[in-house]
Amino acid sequence: MAVIDLNADLGESFGSWRLGDDEAMLEIVTSANVACGFHAGDPLTLQRTCELAARRGVRIGAQISYRDLAGFGRRFLDCSEAELRADVLYQLGALQAMCLVAGTSLAYVKPHGALYNTVVHHQSHARAVVSAVAAYDSSLPVLGLPGGVLLEQARAEGLRTVTEAFVDRGYTPAGTLVPRGQPGDLIHDPDAAAARVLRMVRDGVITAVDGTEVEMHAESLCTHGDSPGAVAMARRVREALVSSGVEVRAFA
Amino acid sequence: MAVIDLNADLGESFGSWRLGDDEAMLEIVTSANVACGFHAGDPLTLQRTCELAARRGVRIGAQISYRDLAGFGRRFLDCSEAELRADVLYQLGALQAMCLVAGTSLAYVKPHGALYNTVVHHQSHARAVVSAVAAYDSSLPVLGLPGGVLLEQARAEGLRTVTEAFVDRGYTPAGTLVPRGQPGDLIHDPDAAAARVLRMVRDGVITAVDGTEVEMHAESLCTHGDSPGAVAMARRVREALVSSGVEVRAFA
Amino acid sequence: MAVIDLNADLGESFGSWRLGDDEAMLEIVTSANVACGFHAGDPLTLQRTCELAARRGVRIGAQISYRDLAGFGRRFLDCSEAELRADVLYQLGALQAMCLVAGTSLAYVKPHGALYNTVVHHQSHARAVVSAVAAYDSSLPVLGLPGGVLLEQARAEGLRTVTEAFVDRGYTPAGTLVPRGQPGDLIHDPDAAAARVLRMVRDGVITAVDGTEVEMHAESLCTHGDSPGAVAMARRVREALVSSGVEVRAFA
Amino acid sequence: MAVIDLNADLGESFGSWRLGDDEAMLEIVTSANVACGFHAGDPLTLQRTCELAARRGVRIGAQISYRDLAGFGRRFLDCSEAELRADVLYQLGALQAMCLVAGTSLAYVKPHGALYNTVVHHQSHARAVVSAVAAYDSSLPVLGLPGGVLLEQARAEGLRTVTEAFVDRGYTPAGTLVPRGQPGDLIHDPDAAAARVLRMVRDGVITAVDGTEVEMHAESLCTHGDSPGAVAMARRVREALVSSGVEVRAFA
Repeated sequence: MAVIDLNADLGESFGSWRLGDDEAMLEIVTSANVACGFHAGDPLTLQRTCELAARRGVRIGAQISYRDLAGFGRRFLDCSEAELRADVLYQLGALQAMCLVAGTSLAYVKPHGALYNTVVHHQSHARAVVSAVAAYDSSLPVLGLPGGVLLEQARAEGLRTVTEAFVDRGYTPAGTLVPRGQPGDLIHDPDAAAARVLRMVRDGVITAVDGTEVEMHAESLCTHGDSPGAVAMARRVREALVSSGVEVRAFA
Repeated sequence: MAVIDLNADLGESFGSWRLGDDEAMLEIVTSANVACGFHAGDPLTLQRTCELAARRGVRIGAQISYRDLAGFGRRFLDCSEAELRADVLYQLGALQAMCLVAGTSLAYVKPHGALYNTVVHHQSHARAVVSAVAAYDSSLPVLGLPGGVLLEQARAEGLRTVTEAFVDRGYTPAGTLVPRGQPGDLIHDPDAAAARVLRMVRDGVITAVDGTEVEMHAESLCTHGDSPGAVAMARRVREALVSSGVEVRAFA
Repeated sequence: MAVIDLNADLGESFGSWRLGDDEAMLEIVTSANVACGFHAGDPLTLQRTCELAARRGVRIGAQISYRDLAGFGRRFLDCSEAELRADVLYQLGALQAMCLVAGTSLAYVKPHGALYNTVVHHQSHARAVVSAVAAYDSSLPVLGLPGGVLLEQARAEGLRTVTEAFVDRGYTPAGTLVPRGQPGDLIHDPDAAAARVLRMVRDGVITAVDGTEVEMHAESLCTHGDSPGAVAMARRVREALVSSGVEVRAFA
Repeated sequence: MAVIDLNADLGESFGSWRLGDDEAMLEIVTSANVACGFHAGDPLTLQRTCELAARRGVRIGAQISYRDLAGFGRRFLDCSEAELRADVLYQLGALQAMCLVAGTSLAYVKPHGALYNTVVHHQSHARAVVSAVAAYDSSLPVLGLPGGVLLEQARAEGLRTVTEAFVDRGYTPAGTLVPRGQPGDLIHDPDAAAARVLRMVRDGVITAVDGTEVEMHAESLCTHGDSPGAVAMARRVREALVSSGVEVRAFA
């Protein structure tokens, strides 16, 4: 039987500012990428998100980021490898505390935003992440984009790597993401998203924007939950998977 | 044989700003109250301070604070108990990660600055600290001022409490600290400080500003290291203790 | 003919986090209390809010705050008078730059959140605000709660003071606000709010929670815009005032 | 008679962290690049630095930066042009307020750290700076490295541009700075620095690391003041200039 994990970014509120519907998403996903305070997530939000995730049996990953609250971690920051490594360690420990008091434990690591995109190609920043995870807890899997420098380095370091595909992003015939702002970058129809994802999980191919099919293997599907439409799409995808006999289960 | 611990605030630099002579102090003290990033201490500073402390065999305590970089944690912040509890958890976890990669483990907790002073009397903020420590790791001792609400609550919660006396602060005949800015608030002469402290360690009395002797029992002595004079005084105190046969040893 | 100003808090988004419907509120109010970056408001948000306000002919006030992004300025911070005075100056200048490039100029000052409540009674923090405003531009009016230390000091300093009443807050028979969480603290019915406010503007009395009428004179009415219901209430109040022949006009 | 300006970075303390000897430097320089709070400079520090500068007759420039306290503005931040433009406006206004209460006015703008280096070649970030300055006050000169994109765009926009040379940095035969970490990157001998600078001011040539002379015209000399040795060098340079009949005078 086919098995897949569903992940989403959670805990991204900050103080009085709310973002996303964490409660709704925790009914849908099996892995929660919880912010760690550097791009979002005040400590009380992180604590509550971890408690809620633990109660629902959702595994918690550290959604590590550059230090950039004003930019929500979406801006590349040219820090040194040593600075970034320490920043990652700090975030891992902080979120681990929240997991611990929620009766669970950190289950994996996923870079956020600009860091996510940067470590696909930036050797030194990828090394900072990998080295921090390996030093902190070498049993933690690293979740990221297939084919990038991060996962390559993580494997070389002996870390478990987990790849993901995107529920609502268009793919090129080469199997890469259609850049944002270009035609086909986003899928808005829940049924279309669900059908595409189901095919990927069962047959290992994804339909690209030009209709061709590309080989695509991923252990996790990244969903979004920061709008009512996004939540509905994530729910539809889960339903389609479950009703087709796919087991939706955390990879960690 | 008499035994005493020496503690000091360390890891209080931030980015390009340096504060204190951590290397020198780590040759003197047995317990390092390491900042946790909320009043001072960027992650790389914290990591390096913990590594250095671990190499020297100095125990590491989490010097938790209100979230106030601009005020160095010296300003009371009227946050809610839930916010403060989560802020403390976040800091404990972050520093624990730095201890872990340094090959050691968090050994105790000491509030900093305005939080230190507030939890002497503020029930709700004391509860936030105690509750966070108990939830995170109930084997962690809490270091603080004798006679305050924090240690009372900590004891009630089953936590080990450790009291401290100040090497360079004047005491009133009632055994409380002479408020800063009043005559006798600070001791500047290393020999006088060393003699006073030695008497306290051996005989359980401290000489107050008016010459009277007050009963005073403390398991740890708080020294300062943020000026050359402060480092010299700490060194003199340690020498006086050691040469008098007192064992200088971490309480944790 | 009766004249009244309508004010609301605006520009309170931060980075990716959105708060309130600024566009809708700028169609309703005559004075915009724009955040200054210390409790909310990244610079780009402030710039755009000021541009929009200027285009609509809405006057811009500096909504100054304690430095507390994580607490949205709702937590008392025990800073020194000198620190607070400098913090206020910094915020006034920053927002003035945004007014200037929007083709307008700062028109008044209104403290936010915990600072708003504190300066009603805290002599030193009130002095910090008044002294900063007087030094920066002594023609700037100060908007605040009637009867507090802030407006008293401002008048003594020769500043123009403007008092406000709240559209959606209940009043006690003594003319003070019903504390939040107590029965009658908030008015939820737009029609009831509009009727009460209209009576106050025309007759100088406000109906308290027990039905008695209290004398109440205010040059401005504070409305809220951080929820769809709040925007609807503000709009209803404005319509009721205008259709009753009251002139809704900025005080500045 | 030859005329030259001496500039230095000032106001770079933050809260309890002190950096540089601002008092000493304000006896030496004619232009103070005062931090604006984004890489350094809490508001009270900025206020006091501006007051001191104004009393000494030293002109005040806004030392604008990326938003990066933890990195002291030394790390490139890939923000959007609109974000950076707003960040610059915010900083200009904030520092202008400090100038105003000190009885003076902002006299020029100089980017700091990573922003300084980036706008030499980064079209979009240079445009953000130039556009912000032009919109805020088109009479403000921009101080920067000769030959870069920033000054080119500033001139095209009609802003006055001012070039600087470095008192303690080595130059290549091509007239560019020797990269840090390479042989000859820094000059440590005050007499050598003074002699080199005097030649540049009088004859328009600077001696490169290989002994050749390169044409170099600058209206301002950048000195450093963040160490006792740096202050001594700045003082020596000023004395050499003055005793040789050069007029040391602010360009603004």
